[in-house]
Amino acid sequence: MRDQSSAPVGSAFGRFLFMTTQNAAPELLVEKWFNTDHPLTLSGLRGRVVVLAAFQVLCPDSIASGVPQARRIYETFAPSDVTVIGMHTTFEHHDAFNSAVLKAFIQEYRLKFPIALDQPNAAGPIPHTMERYKMRGTPSLVLIDRHGMVRKHAFGAVDDLRIGAEIGALTQEAAAAIAHSSAA
Amino acid sequence: MRDQSSAPVGSAFGRFLFMTTQNAAPELLVEKWFNTDHPLTLSGLRGRVVVLAAFQVLCPDSIASGVPQARRIYETFAPSDVTVIGMHTTFEHHDAFNSAVLKAFIQEYRLKFPIALDQPNAAGPIPHTMERYKMRGTPSLVLIDRHGMVRKHAFGAVDDLRIGAEIGALTQEAAAAIAHSSAA
Amino acid sequence: MRDQSSAPVGSAFGRFLFMTTQNAAPELLVEKWFNTDHPLTLSGLRGRVVVLAAFQVLCPDSIASGVPQARRIYETFAPSDVTVIGMHTTFEHHDAFNSAVLKAFIQEYRLKFPIALDQPNAAGPIPHTMERYKMRGTPSLVLIDRHGMVRKHAFGAVDDLRIGAEIGALTQEAAAAIAHSSAA
Amino acid sequence: MRDQSSAPVGSAFGRFLFMTTQNAAPELLVEKWFNTDHPLTLSGLRGRVVVLAAFQVLCPDSIASGVPQARRIYETFAPSDVTVIGMHTTFEHHDAFNSAVLKAFIQEYRLKFPIALDQPNAAGPIPHTMERYKMRGTPSLVLIDRHGMVRKHAFGAVDDLRIGAEIGALTQEAAAAIAHSSAA
Repeated sequence: MRDQSSAPVGSAFGRFLFMTTQNAAPELLVEKWFNTDHPLTLSGLRGRVVVLAAFQVLCPDSIASGVPQARRIYETFAPSDVTVIGMHTTFEHHDAFNSAVLKAFIQEYRLKFPIALDQPNAAGPIPHTMERYKMRGTPSLVLIDRHGMVRKHAFGAVDDLRIGAEIGALTQEAAAAIAHSSAA
Repeated sequence: MRDQSSAPVGSAFGRFLFMTTQNAAPELLVEKWFNTDHPLTLSGLRGRVVVLAAFQVLCPDSIASGVPQARRIYETFAPSDVTVIGMHTTFEHHDAFNSAVLKAFIQEYRLKFPIALDQPNAAGPIPHTMERYKMRGTPSLVLIDRHGMVRKHAFGAVDDLRIGAEIGALTQEAAAAIAHSSAA
Repeated sequence: MRDQSSAPVGSAFGRFLFMTTQNAAPELLVEKWFNTDHPLTLSGLRGRVVVLAAFQVLCPDSIASGVPQARRIYETFAPSDVTVIGMHTTFEHHDAFNSAVLKAFIQEYRLKFPIALDQPNAAGPIPHTMERYKMRGTPSLVLIDRHGMVRKHAFGAVDDLRIGAEIGALTQEAAAAIAHSSAA
Repeated sequence: MRDQSSAPVGSAFGRFLFMTTQNAAPELLVEKWFNTDHPLTLSGLRGRVVVLAAFQVLCPDSIASGVPQARRIYETFAPSDVTVIGMHTTFEHHDAFNSAVLKAFIQEYRLKFPIALDQPNAAGPIPHTMERYKMRGTPSLVLIDRHGMVRKHAFGAVDDLRIGAEIGALTQEAAAAIAHSSAA
């Protein structure tokens, strides 16, 4: 498993050295939403920090670390500031999985944050959102800043302390931008 | 146990609503230092975020949660950006404790960050730094910003995700301030 | 949740006071077996201690405690002495579950001990083995002695130390019986 | 760390193959007792299973695994059947340790079972009981059967399930012996 976040957080060289990417986040492609009245889009969430947590019900690491961490992030930050989105990226066990499994899973684990079922891809086993983000597997965690840029993309377990620091840092960016504007 | 950090992190009302205090951090009063060539002072650390982690060797919650979390913070952030200081605030079991106990403890737990033995108070059982900070007990965690202000003061266990977010947010402040200056 | 094993283990009053039942174990009714070349029967396992661990893939407590404990029991005792059988008792989420889910689950969690899919009941949601054993839900743990008697029946999480003691005690019974015989 | 209990429990070859030793347990040599009105001796405990748990306050593994396991054993078994004795074997950090440290430790961790301070040895750093038992370090766990024989001697962490099984098996021995007698 490759964890892209092994470097110390923070640096004399720049504010976001610990952030590993700087690309525009592709829009989500979703077959079905749970825990939300209306479909969510990244463009509609511009201005908020977005935490995209990819998982699978039949992936032990997703159940042991990915999903519980997504829940803790959801419970720690104000949703209007940091929006957590679960994304079930079904890229294996297609014969075993169906949306009723995901629905029952969400109910049993009492998950309250919005969860999407990634859109299947007729051309292969990798669903569309997973493919667009070039995720290596599950669990994967993507941090998207207030401007819609991908600032972190991690595969596998990530420390709470580090991911907390990175989200906390991202929440401060807009304020800085506003400060810039008002100082201008 | 009173946990001062139960409110959601972040808010539409301000950048640091989750920070609970805004007072100048009193200087440390120390009897003896470990893991540092020279005594540390908060004034000498101005410009860095400082994490002050108070603990006691004979306090079960310190051993189970406070000290391991201080170690994780130390291992996550660059010391030149976020400085972790352990502070042994001996306010009970004075007959049992001595500095050789602390020395052996640091060695056995392989702690690498600077650790201070709080200065005893001839007037009573509460040592000087603990008294100045009005700590309620151990473990206690104090976050001090780059300008020497106390921004959080928690007693008891604190979630890694939340404390990571708060430290991460504090690390961004100086950059914002510099941006202000250069924008002026 | 009712845990039937809250009394201290052992007693001056009898060898197995901590055992809560003493009924003949009903034979298993199974739709499909995994991890075994041939169907297992309790009658065929007479002479061994049998640990019957009921679980469901979509039951959080089963995943967090029941299944991992069954695995640890399997890894601790010699299978020829203590046989662990997992039993998927599908009594809810019938629309979501199918045997392919169980097959994928066993593969992903790398479970090596024999696992049965409880036989569905045309008359209602509770499958046959679960009904015969009057299980209250999942996870449930049943200890069956060398003579085919149910000696413990617990619903919910059970301490490793206690369940270890109970299995360890049961493994000693046959030897005592043999001693009896040879002494006669 | 050498863990002497890596073989599967139980066997076709004998009842106690998993037990690693079969020597008479040396009597305890104790400087000071806590949590008991009178000094305990192994000879006075004949007829009971005795769990001897050696630890040190300044040993991280003792605090993380040894002492909590001793507490769980104490809480699981009836003391009249299985007697747990903690033994502080001070073989290092003699300058840091004193009996007041142990007293405060017992109080803070709310330990209720009898705890002994091993008798210092004028001839060297290893206290007398530790030397008699040839313990390799802390934590060490010794199981003594109803006849005063050492049946297990482990250094380092031991699984709850395995140690539970071994204690559970030992509790059954006396009953078997009684059965022998009455059958004769």
